[in-house]
Amino acid sequence: MSLPSSELRASVTSRRGVIGTGAGLAVGALAGGAAYGLMREEMPAAHPAGPAVPDGQVPFRGVHQAGIVTPAQDRMHFVALDVITEDGEQLRALLTAWTLAAERMTYGAEAVPGGSVGGGPYRVPADTGEALDLPPSNLTITIGYGPSLFDRFGLAHRKPAGLRELPGFRGDDLDPAACGGDIAIQACADDPQVAVHAVRNLIRLGFGVVAGRWSQLGFGRTSSTSTSQATPRNLFGFKDGTANIKAEDAAALARHVWVAAEDVPGAAEWMTGGSYLVARRIRMHIEVWDRTHLQEQQDVIGRGKLAGEPLGQKAEFDAINFSAKRTDGEPAIPLASHVRLAHADNLDGIKLLRRGYNFTDGSDGQGHLNAGLFFIAFMRDAHAQFVPMQRALAARDLLNEYIEHTGSAVFACPPGLSESQDWGAQLFG
Amino acid sequence: MSLPSSELRASVTSRRGVIGTGAGLAVGALAGGAAYGLMREEMPAAHPAGPAVPDGQVPFRGVHQAGIVTPAQDRMHFVALDVITEDGEQLRALLTAWTLAAERMTYGAEAVPGGSVGGGPYRVPADTGEALDLPPSNLTITIGYGPSLFDRFGLAHRKPAGLRELPGFRGDDLDPAACGGDIAIQACADDPQVAVHAVRNLIRLGFGVVAGRWSQLGFGRTSSTSTSQATPRNLFGFKDGTANIKAEDAAALARHVWVAAEDVPGAAEWMTGGSYLVARRIRMHIEVWDRTHLQEQQDVIGRGKLAGEPLGQKAEFDAINFSAKRTDGEPAIPLASHVRLAHADNLDGIKLLRRGYNFTDGSDGQGHLNAGLFFIAFMRDAHAQFVPMQRALAARDLLNEYIEHTGSAVFACPPGLSESQDWGAQLFG
Repeated sequence: MSLPSSELRASVTSRRGVIGTGAGLAVGALAGGAAYGLMREEMPAAHPAGPAVPDGQVPFRGVHQAGIVTPAQDRMHFVALDVITEDGEQLRALLTAWTLAAERMTYGAEAVPGGSVGGGPYRVPADTGEALDLPPSNLTITIGYGPSLFDRFGLAHRKPAGLRELPGFRGDDLDPAACGGDIAIQACADDPQVAVHAVRNLIRLGFGVVAGRWSQLGFGRTSSTSTSQATPRNLFGFKDGTANIKAEDAAALARHVWVAAEDVPGAAEWMTGGSYLVARRIRMHIEVWDRTHLQEQQDVIGRGKLAGEPLGQKAEFDAINFSAKRTDGEPAIPLASHVRLAHADNLDGIKLLRRGYNFTDGSDGQGHLNAGLFFIAFMRDAHAQFVPMQRALAARDLLNEYIEHTGSAVFACPPGLSESQDWGAQLFG
Repeated sequence: MSLPSSELRASVTSRRGVIGTGAGLAVGALAGGAAYGLMREEMPAAHPAGPAVPDGQVPFRGVHQAGIVTPAQDRMHFVALDVITEDGEQLRALLTAWTLAAERMTYGAEAVPGGSVGGGPYRVPADTGEALDLPPSNLTITIGYGPSLFDRFGLAHRKPAGLRELPGFRGDDLDPAACGGDIAIQACADDPQVAVHAVRNLIRLGFGVVAGRWSQLGFGRTSSTSTSQATPRNLFGFKDGTANIKAEDAAALARHVWVAAEDVPGAAEWMTGGSYLVARRIRMHIEVWDRTHLQEQQDVIGRGKLAGEPLGQKAEFDAINFSAKRTDGEPAIPLASHVRLAHADNLDGIKLLRRGYNFTDGSDGQGHLNAGLFFIAFMRDAHAQFVPMQRALAARDLLNEYIEHTGSAVFACPPGLSESQDWGAQLFG
């Protein structure tokens, strides 16, 4: 917070060397002759924009935030924060500082100019340093705001009508310590150390203004968000996200993912082009699942395990036929299977953009792995999309025997930033 | 356990397609026309041996276990298990089944023939399936036995004299639930899903015989174990493992890492060529560390942050000079710095082979990330190497202000297996 945005903006130290073509400006010499190349402070000649640039960089600015339709990276670190200041100006300044730090890190730069060592021996390093030698690794940093944030700081009139806490669902076993939060940061990268570094340094910039509420490390993605990606598997061993909305389907994104101007009239119009993020920490009782036979597993999911085909079909992307019958006359896809209940055809056309990750958080003290799926989905209206879908699933999904929702949160993720914008100005107007 | 080793051995289903050159044997057709290629069951034409084979496979058999001097993979899943049966034959049979499953998985095969779907619809799948589409990813599976194991099953006479619980150390803040265990399995791979899959399927094979005690996911390696690897950084932002023993240094390995025949006379001779594994879960108070200035950080560690040079030198691999003085006459490397206290020159030549991983296990409920270093080291004698080193560090390491040891265990890792051996026969003789 003590760093004015102009200073943050002034230069970019690249972890991968020098970005852009501007003249280099060497900063304070290091004792011991350390690598000076890393210390050159430069502005990038131009912000990358448009399609993804080489070397694993995802453009930070654009019409929408990165990390939503960006082809899902391999790893994720997610944190929900409480705002602990009463001073809206401090929050606004933090959001401005975060914008610049986040943008820098997506270039592979350290969070703040000077970084780990450039401030000299008797200053606290401005970056924690553990990502110093690592490439950008397709890092994306996506921000979202919880309903509780808008009760303070004079933000009530800017609260989008759609941003309301989720209702309780049948079977919920939520741990309050893993729910909610004023602000969410989702950092995704192909290297977990890059994602963890990003979250840590943003939290650190917010010392005294925000405090960590809960966090989650995801080790493997469970959904493809682009037709260029193969469908990954969740910890039940099934391909997950076959029928997901894909980045290439602009019509589906407009209909299901991006908030339209008509959704947020008046002072909430800043959310146009944004999206609602629903996070659910789903503990999977994998040991119980692992004792069921293959047909039971396939009937629960509604797909084949090996190829991921809808039951009764042959290949993963074959059209689902809910009328198909088995030879015994029963539906090929059982009436309470996960795929049937969650499918748009049976939910008045509802779809979500899922972008979840597998997790294991050690053991549960009872001999089992504390493992599961950290469900993240983006949508245009959480209460018109996630809520009815989850109600249908909570009521009778066969999968409920094997899973437990232990954490829950909803956040409004603003649209992307233009060249001159930052998150502070975007939120406060 | 119910699977005789001959059956386990009979065939290898490769996740990556067919391994070797033998004739394929298609097994039961799948409903829905799923990918038959994956179902071909074959013996590999020959076990890979000697140097690492292509496609990310590490040979499972050899003089020593893989996963010790194997160039450290990017990710790790580690589990400590309690043996819950009273029947030694059950344990022995499990170790035999584990051997075959572990070997299969390092080839990229499913844990057990038949695997996820080959048993047909009305059998419980023999593999949990989440690694079906993933390459071997340099998976290594390393087993170790805790002191407590040898109190039962008639194994007392085979207990190596060096396998004794570690003493308490000053400052220890151990959680009993994260300490000890009868058996340890360390799975390392470049893809965390492959490592998690391996641990999960081995636990699963042990249902009724073993139960999980504690487990740890490591997201990033902190030590290089080969001269071919750059030194990674820990969560304090410093290069870690610069002075580590490297796989290429056979003399150092013989002196410091591998148990020699003379160390284990009599019925404990089976440990010849093995190594002791010390695991310490070290919580790092990163938020406190992040508030200290650069010089303090460098003085605590004894190295420069950017390049990792010993203080007073220029480059990472420059020789450490403990006599070097700063211009003010003080030692360049402070007397209580981590590097000085842990260095072989100040510990009668003691060295360890470190092979640790960074972790973040969510948040601690007090606004901080529950993050740190899962320290793993291999050595010839834990009580002659780790214990004096840790005593020296616990007494006065400046780093103690920023870290806390919360978990601890020691295991005897047997030598590698010959072509005809399995872990059951090796342990029970």
